Amino acid sequence: MAEVSDAVLTRVDQDLNESLERLFAFLRIPSISAQPDHAQACRLAAQWLCTELSALGFDATIRETPGHPMVVGHDRPEEAQGLHVLFYGHYDVQPTDPLSLWKSDPFAPSLVTGPDGRQVIVARGASDDKGQLMTFIEACRAWRAVHGTLPVRVSVLIEGEEESGGANLMPFLKANADELEADVALICDTGMPDRRTPAITTSLRGLVGEEVTIECATHDLHSGMFGNAARNPIELLCQALGSVRDSEGRVTLPGFYDGVIVPSDSVRDQWRAIFPDDSLTLGPVGLSRAAGEAGFTAVEQIWARPSYEINGISGGYEGDGFKTVLPAKAMAKVSFRLVPGQDPEAVRAAFRAHVRNAMPDDARVTFSEHGASSGFAVPENGPLLKTALDALGKEWGVPAVSIGCGGSIPVVAEVKEALDMDSLLIGFAQDDDRIHSPNEQYGVESFHKGIRSWVRILSAFSQL
Amino acid sequence: MAEVSDAVLTRVDQDLNESLERLFAFLRIPSISAQPDHAQACRLAAQWLCTELSALGFDATIRETPGHPMVVGHDRPEEAQGLHVLFYGHYDVQPTDPLSLWKSDPFAPSLVTGPDGRQVIVARGASDDKGQLMTFIEACRAWRAVHGTLPVRVSVLIEGEEESGGANLMPFLKANADELEADVALICDTGMPDRRTPAITTSLRGLVGEEVTIECATHDLHSGMFGNAARNPIELLCQALGSVRDSEGRVTLPGFYDGVIVPSDSVRDQWRAIFPDDSLTLGPVGLSRAAGEAGFTAVEQIWARPSYEINGISGGYEGDGFKTVLPAKAMAKVSFRLVPGQDPEAVRAAFRAHVRNAMPDDARVTFSEHGASSGFAVPENGPLLKTALDALGKEWGVPAVSIGCGGSIPVVAEVKEALDMDSLLIGFAQDDDRIHSPNEQYGVESFHKGIRSWVRILSAFSQL
Repeated sequence: MAEVSDAVLTRVDQDLNESLERLFAFLRIPSISAQPDHAQACRLAAQWLCTELSALGFDATIRETPGHPMVVGHDRPEEAQGLHVLFYGHYDVQPTDPLSLWKSDPFAPSLVTGPDGRQVIVARGASDDKGQLMTFIEACRAWRAVHGTLPVRVSVLIEGEEESGGANLMPFLKANADELEADVALICDTGMPDRRTPAITTSLRGLVGEEVTIECATHDLHSGMFGNAARNPIELLCQALGSVRDSEGRVTLPGFYDGVIVPSDSVRDQWRAIFPDDSLTLGPVGLSRAAGEAGFTAVEQIWARPSYEINGISGGYEGDGFKTVLPAKAMAKVSFRLVPGQDPEAVRAAFRAHVRNAMPDDARVTFSEHGASSGFAVPENGPLLKTALDALGKEWGVPAVSIGCGGSIPVVAEVKEALDMDSLLIGFAQDDDRIHSPNEQYGVESFHKGIRSWVRILSAFSQL
Repeated sequence: MAEVSDAVLTRVDQDLNESLERLFAFLRIPSISAQPDHAQACRLAAQWLCTELSALGFDATIRETPGHPMVVGHDRPEEAQGLHVLFYGHYDVQPTDPLSLWKSDPFAPSLVTGPDGRQVIVARGASDDKGQLMTFIEACRAWRAVHGTLPVRVSVLIEGEEESGGANLMPFLKANADELEADVALICDTGMPDRRTPAITTSLRGLVGEEVTIECATHDLHSGMFGNAARNPIELLCQALGSVRDSEGRVTLPGFYDGVIVPSDSVRDQWRAIFPDDSLTLGPVGLSRAAGEAGFTAVEQIWARPSYEINGISGGYEGDGFKTVLPAKAMAKVSFRLVPGQDPEAVRAAFRAHVRNAMPDDARVTFSEHGASSGFAVPENGPLLKTALDALGKEWGVPAVSIGCGGSIPVVAEVKEALDMDSLLIGFAQDDDRIHSPNEQYGVESFHKGIRSWVRILSAFSQL
């Protein structure tokens, strides 16, 4: 079978410029799912994908939801034998603010060569997730071009609300469970621990999002007329949010660490071999010391420990100059990243109790939810995982490793619950891809070797 | 002399509607000094005043500064004998945000009758300070209309940067000391302790304003990729600002209370007679318990104790929905109200040291100043003070009292330093005037009896 995939790999190399052109066309569509005025662009991205998949021989359709539409495609739907994979990606992207920090239009993709000679694709969604999902579609294209068919049975599901809550995915999976069920889900939305080491992500953090608003006086006051005697909601917010972690970086909410499993020494040794020094993790973003719990490396803090973050805060006068206002109200957006074993609703309840307990008379606090998902660990001993790791190692010339991920990819838990399927998280992003930030990028090597990696993985799967 | 002022008071009553119309014209000018795009409106307000004063026989001029212009006017400049008063006010107003909370256009003044039958003027600046300063100008107008002259020698100085730092006032006073020197400054920018009791404010708090910015990573990060290991500047800001006061409301900065004088028991008794219960102070703004230091009433906390306030805070994602950003930067605006005896620069230094000490590695903190002024106490035993208190008592039918003020009126200290003059702070604002807040108002009675009060005070001064 080696020669079968070799021809496909050659085809991938020859077609790279055309593959990039197709990706650029996709990146030009400003499919920001969180912003209602971009709904039409989201639909356009779905239609673009549907057209591409149809051209590749998939039976592809746009599927309506209460939000942005899904794209579903099936290859070889008539044949029931052989391994069946369900590939998942998302066509929606994050908002672009602050726009002033972008060096070029977020939706005018360009190739940029860095000082180290490395070529990157710059655009919103270049990495997360348009560039990544296109590695799989381009691998399918090359297989079909060379052999007229794919080596295993493939279904594709691309959603459009991953960056904005994804409330419609779970109902869609449940409503279409018979159609979407396969042997394994392949998800391309994760990264590599460095430039050279391929990886499969076997643990993910969940997320609890909360918005908290504190109100005191009935209206904004003059700090000269009331300062000292009237409660200041910004100060109360600072006191409540500033005391969630202690000076050692440990979250003080009662029960917060209940159920958290510390990674085994062997896993920690493997990770420390990849990241012998925190500066490898933090240096690229201008930091030098891990901020979280003492006793864990930066990578362990991100991959295996729960976090507490203040994602936004607002209150009083934020403009130029100064205003001696004693504001009536202050607001913050807060999130916890959860590891397997933690109960999202228990964490939410503990946070709310902490804030409420910090409130004196005359302060009214209200909360609103922004999603909840559990941390998730993918079984580490399945034959598909081992086969995929081997195939990745062959492409990159370095043994592939199992790593954790500090982010939340709710689809993994949802696919498990709705379809009873495990997922393999295989991606080619780099930590400096600046996803969710201005000047998002994706390495041309990530894209090129990503496509080649999928060619090898599908080939190896066909021999199981 | 009684009949002399009686005729003027009658004239004030007869001319009230026209006085209100003139005030409304002044209120329509959006002279927000803090916002650069309102510079032309500030100049327009100065020109409007200059025209009014000239029409009243003042030798009035617009005087340029590096910021917004001053208005200076002199009546009877040729006659050197008799008492000479320098009246001070400011034509600039606070910004109007949040605009959505205004029930009407802040610069379209209207008369509104409340449920208690009380009539108020609603507009930005209605009370602070356009309505207040016009009480004096209208009193001068009535004197001149009846007698063709004013009873004492009057100079007027109206500035345009009181709400935005006022950095140009002190140099102006010093550069024009000979021209501006008088026997006493009359300042109309304070209030009454309740609806019926006239008052002269004999102590003021100073102000130290600071803006603090904390920066960590070089750019905004994804909280999934870095959360727990990368410093969060919002959390650091909350920890630093949330620990300036202890749980008893006491500021913990070293040396903060050095030099602070506790008011005498007799003064505290007088204040407690006016405000026997904190609910009188706090109830109108929806609060019930004094938030500051234990052992002081709300009024004592405001009039005689220094304060710490967070006036604004900003960082990360503040819009609708949720964004899992780990921001690179967070900012807050902070102020301290100071009582006589405290050193503004020592307070600023102690605050900066507190914030710097709270910063771990990887956090860069920068500060910028937003003004500094000392607290100030006006001598309580001068003959002008007694005369003015008596005149006020006659107008309102209730003995006038000496009170404190929690606000900062830097001009008092600056007039003392630059011109070696004491000030009398006489104003007619009410605590529910909502100054600096949406729906600012000024009672028609404050305006009417304010004009009449100045008529009586000028008359009494002419008999000294």
